[in-house]
Amino acid sequence: MLIVMKPDAAEDDISYVVRRAASLGLTPHVSAQNGSVLVGLTGDKRGLALDSMAGLRGVARVQPTDHPFRLASKEFRREATIVSVGGVSIGSTQVVICAGPCSLETRGQVQQSARAVKAAGGSLLRGGAFKPRSSPYAFQGLAEGGLQLLADARQATGLPVVTEVLAPDQVPLVARYADMLQVGARNMQNYPLLHAVGETRMPVLLKRGMSSTIEELLLAAEYILSHGNPNIVLCERGIRTFETYTRNTLDINAVASLKELTHLPVFVDPSHGTGKASLVAAASRAAVAAGADGLIIEVHPEPEHAWSDGFQSLTPAELTALLTQLAPIAQAIGRSL
Amino acid sequence: MLIVMKPDAAEDDISYVVRRAASLGLTPHVSAQNGSVLVGLTGDKRGLALDSMAGLRGVARVQPTDHPFRLASKEFRREATIVSVGGVSIGSTQVVICAGPCSLETRGQVQQSARAVKAAGGSLLRGGAFKPRSSPYAFQGLAEGGLQLLADARQATGLPVVTEVLAPDQVPLVARYADMLQVGARNMQNYPLLHAVGETRMPVLLKRGMSSTIEELLLAAEYILSHGNPNIVLCERGIRTFETYTRNTLDINAVASLKELTHLPVFVDPSHGTGKASLVAAASRAAVAAGADGLIIEVHPEPEHAWSDGFQSLTPAELTALLTQLAPIAQAIGRSL
Amino acid sequence: MLIVMKPDAAEDDISYVVRRAASLGLTPHVSAQNGSVLVGLTGDKRGLALDSMAGLRGVARVQPTDHPFRLASKEFRREATIVSVGGVSIGSTQVVICAGPCSLETRGQVQQSARAVKAAGGSLLRGGAFKPRSSPYAFQGLAEGGLQLLADARQATGLPVVTEVLAPDQVPLVARYADMLQVGARNMQNYPLLHAVGETRMPVLLKRGMSSTIEELLLAAEYILSHGNPNIVLCERGIRTFETYTRNTLDINAVASLKELTHLPVFVDPSHGTGKASLVAAASRAAVAAGADGLIIEVHPEPEHAWSDGFQSLTPAELTALLTQLAPIAQAIGRSL
Amino acid sequence: MLIVMKPDAAEDDISYVVRRAASLGLTPHVSAQNGSVLVGLTGDKRGLALDSMAGLRGVARVQPTDHPFRLASKEFRREATIVSVGGVSIGSTQVVICAGPCSLETRGQVQQSARAVKAAGGSLLRGGAFKPRSSPYAFQGLAEGGLQLLADARQATGLPVVTEVLAPDQVPLVARYADMLQVGARNMQNYPLLHAVGETRMPVLLKRGMSSTIEELLLAAEYILSHGNPNIVLCERGIRTFETYTRNTLDINAVASLKELTHLPVFVDPSHGTGKASLVAAASRAAVAAGADGLIIEVHPEPEHAWSDGFQSLTPAELTALLTQLAPIAQAIGRSL
Repeated sequence: MLIVMKPDAAEDDISYVVRRAASLGLTPHVSAQNGSVLVGLTGDKRGLALDSMAGLRGVARVQPTDHPFRLASKEFRREATIVSVGGVSIGSTQVVICAGPCSLETRGQVQQSARAVKAAGGSLLRGGAFKPRSSPYAFQGLAEGGLQLLADARQATGLPVVTEVLAPDQVPLVARYADMLQVGARNMQNYPLLHAVGETRMPVLLKRGMSSTIEELLLAAEYILSHGNPNIVLCERGIRTFETYTRNTLDINAVASLKELTHLPVFVDPSHGTGKASLVAAASRAAVAAGADGLIIEVHPEPEHAWSDGFQSLTPAELTALLTQLAPIAQAIGRSL
Repeated sequence: MLIVMKPDAAEDDISYVVRRAASLGLTPHVSAQNGSVLVGLTGDKRGLALDSMAGLRGVARVQPTDHPFRLASKEFRREATIVSVGGVSIGSTQVVICAGPCSLETRGQVQQSARAVKAAGGSLLRGGAFKPRSSPYAFQGLAEGGLQLLADARQATGLPVVTEVLAPDQVPLVARYADMLQVGARNMQNYPLLHAVGETRMPVLLKRGMSSTIEELLLAAEYILSHGNPNIVLCERGIRTFETYTRNTLDINAVASLKELTHLPVFVDPSHGTGKASLVAAASRAAVAAGADGLIIEVHPEPEHAWSDGFQSLTPAELTALLTQLAPIAQAIGRSL
Repeated sequence: MLIVMKPDAAEDDISYVVRRAASLGLTPHVSAQNGSVLVGLTGDKRGLALDSMAGLRGVARVQPTDHPFRLASKEFRREATIVSVGGVSIGSTQVVICAGPCSLETRGQVQQSARAVKAAGGSLLRGGAFKPRSSPYAFQGLAEGGLQLLADARQATGLPVVTEVLAPDQVPLVARYADMLQVGARNMQNYPLLHAVGETRMPVLLKRGMSSTIEELLLAAEYILSHGNPNIVLCERGIRTFETYTRNTLDINAVASLKELTHLPVFVDPSHGTGKASLVAAASRAAVAAGADGLIIEVHPEPEHAWSDGFQSLTPAELTALLTQLAPIAQAIGRSL
Repeated sequence: MLIVMKPDAAEDDISYVVRRAASLGLTPHVSAQNGSVLVGLTGDKRGLALDSMAGLRGVARVQPTDHPFRLASKEFRREATIVSVGGVSIGSTQVVICAGPCSLETRGQVQQSARAVKAAGGSLLRGGAFKPRSSPYAFQGLAEGGLQLLADARQATGLPVVTEVLAPDQVPLVARYADMLQVGARNMQNYPLLHAVGETRMPVLLKRGMSSTIEELLLAAEYILSHGNPNIVLCERGIRTFETYTRNTLDINAVASLKELTHLPVFVDPSHGTGKASLVAAASRAAVAAGADGLIIEVHPEPEHAWSDGFQSLTPAELTALLTQLAPIAQAIGRSL
């Protein structure tokens, strides 16, 4: 919801609108555009402001969009956005498979993984060179050395590559090697980083924070969009709940919810969304059936020797078997794999 | 995990095991069987007790099952349980559709709903006569009058009926009318009620509590099983999280998790799992793709006039369209609708 | 918020109000009073209905209370309710200490516990005879034998006793022995039980469900109040979150939140609220400082031999030390212990 | 828990340990120290590895610390850390009050706020010049202009100042103006930022992420400590749960939990922890009673005109009244304000 103030609205009128919004439990965001003050309202998912704000002094009109995100909304853009990553289209009828190891470890491991992804029918290769790890003593990634391994694997297989960037000043380096920049769950609200990737025109895979709402994910996308970069793919990767049997709770509702709110494509990460290799196939099937535009899956030639997240990585054989399962589900909803 | 004590174990030995378990963060459950004391360990999903308990004084052996639920586990029963409800088999290759209104309201509404379910291809009719409502001022259901409407609708359509029971002393009454007893989410840990339905041999639809873990759901089933009733269908219906865009967060991971832990069939409730009619179709497709044995869906001839939960109810036409969508997904995973 | 419809409102007018409320994300509760239809709105904590509903056809007025709970609200009753339990006043300036073992186990254990509570300066004795346990194989309590032990301990020490009741048909039995009936967290939304304790006039300790909101707790109290029983003490006992270091997350905000919403007294359970004996003292100090009217604390003569919850029970010496710590905090906020 | 491998352990031995840990649900962190490979285990809060790992091939010993954080643990440092901020000691007997506006807005507002904090008895001034806001259209702070206002207010009142830094490359700028750097909740796992503040020796106020566990907070501190900066104050500021009556759920248990795990001082933020001015006093009293070393409170000369978070800001008069309430509680537990 957006309150557009009259050009001659007094400061007191604006204050009153802000205070009124806060008293309704909404979070007001004051900004300016073309000489008018705008008050965006976060938390207002139900058009409440329409009824209670329209008649206030100084208010020109209340815009009948109830989203604090504008550029990401369907009101702004009706047709689905298609993001092209090294020639692979995300957001069209094809369900795109991105797979690869959690961490880039050795040349052999990366090459084997890449060939396995290619052989199984995947379209994109993933792998982390800069790893955000909870502990400072954990393996933090190979840094530029890892990026080089990834670029080599791209050359060997033709698969465009996706890799994570952790800080604004890493963006130029990572952008030199990658076809798509990943902003991880822990950085979904790292605004300087969103700003930095927003200033490139590179495709961005934006993962949902582990306790971020769907609205906050779209606001994070809005940061990137508002800096001029329209090439965003959202990614549901599981949220943090009380359940401990799985590493995260994959919020399958988020797929269709995002589809009714935004024109941006939506990926699902069944590996982090479950945290268990044994559950990845079912989560992948569910994601495709729910309408996801693609999956990002961890695969490792030898999961039991992986330097990180081995327990949730598929083997190459499991990946092949999974994609075979997914094809008829994609067809059942009028898509292809 | 189950610690079997030696028949001659001293009370101090048992105390020590209990204390040791608690110090590991596990919850010990002391019971007896065939003259031996057993210490079941809740919270022990990883076989930890195996290493740390086996050598304690008085311990006969540590059983290599890591479940505090026994009768519900696959260790106890390898083959899938098939529950028959008025001739409809739940747990075999067919994905069973149960649908109907949230509340039973009027004869016309129940009859129309039943015919719509039948026409769309559903196999079971649901409807609440005793409604657990957050407010004492909300409509609490038609009680026995509602049960009679349900029974009439069964006679008219041939569909077996499922309805909720709220208290132990209601069980005989509800059992006279229903083909399957529903234990709702709020009552998943109502042990006297679990005991009461456990003493019948009627099929029970046991819904997961809104903040219950998968393990707690299986322990609730264990209550019913341990009283002699093997006819249980589990139901994932969404859990409570921080996300507010949807009424609940449908835990799609629960379907495959339950399938690897138990022999009992698993339903999904996409209506409560999303709380929005617009999201029910995607959640239903995901549930079938993930391996659910059936769905329980709210349908109402006029959702906008429903006395409860209208915003999450499908119209008859929407139900028909949904089942048409689901059939090819069921086929894609080797099942039928 | 309560919408009062005109006596001659058409059914379509009511339907429209219900639909409109649902579209705002509110849950409508239709009821009738003195010939008028009332539509209570759950989820409406911000007076939103006031603006958007007042002018609808058929609406007589929108009552400027924004609570779906009426009898529990401060609008209904301005002065604080004082609940008397066997002569002990809860809700006045004294902070009341209720303590005792989780489970009633043996005569010696109960008597020792009671004497310890008395000696430490506690006013009420707690102990469970009917235990709701996650596993059917866990110790389920001594039933009536336990109640007798509790009554004996009351006779020996003069302490009024509090004990849990699990089912409507247990109410008469438990009421014969107890001075206060406890409705446990798992039963907060067991409506037949709330109804049954509502029909007595006995003091009720109503514990918050582990994933129930503050509003739902007050609606559960409303069930009891609306059946005529005004003697309710609410109890915050920790909620379920993602944090695993503690058994539950004690929602300290709930104390002051409840104090601004209701006239009913508020207890805190630091034992379940933390799940660790080492954290009980700090949680107790915080609860008293936040304004709790009392505490319910688990104490056991030998926690390491307790049949349940030993890891969160204090020893008698620890209880004594705790009450010594609490007295000056109570004084600091103008109360006594 | 830390597994120290033998200097001559084979790579296969290490792999086996890693795999074994993962199969227990623990997350292994491989690192090296003095020529030995170390495997730290996150998620292992119960010493389980001790029993199951000690005898594996290649393992030298299992260190009887069960924390993946080392430098932050009490095993590493027994005495409490005292952090000095511009001459104010945090972590000793005095409970330190830091207060000020959410955002730095105008010279007048900052000066008034600073004088109010000083007059009420506060010791530190807070205020944000770089604001992390969910929406790109919200006020993002005055940047360096705000820092200058803050420095001016320090000069006028003598209060040392605390302000947030959002990105590694902002650290030198913010460090020129501030006495203490704040790392906000959204950046608790922004590792490049933790690295950057770790390389300074400035005091850091590290806020807990809104869905971060206590262990993850300590691991974030470990990042800063491991880069050489020992001057860290942890801050509990409320976590995200299902409860919506308050903005966040203040995890009061975290205070005592942190006190038993770490030597670092602990602050509480009752403003974000509740999100409502009316609840700040009760939360502050609880925090002091639970043992917090200080509070960080939002205050604004005119909360209803605040550019952000006005609904949770106290007025100067309310701040004064609050500190008057807190003094006797601090005394009751042997501290001063």
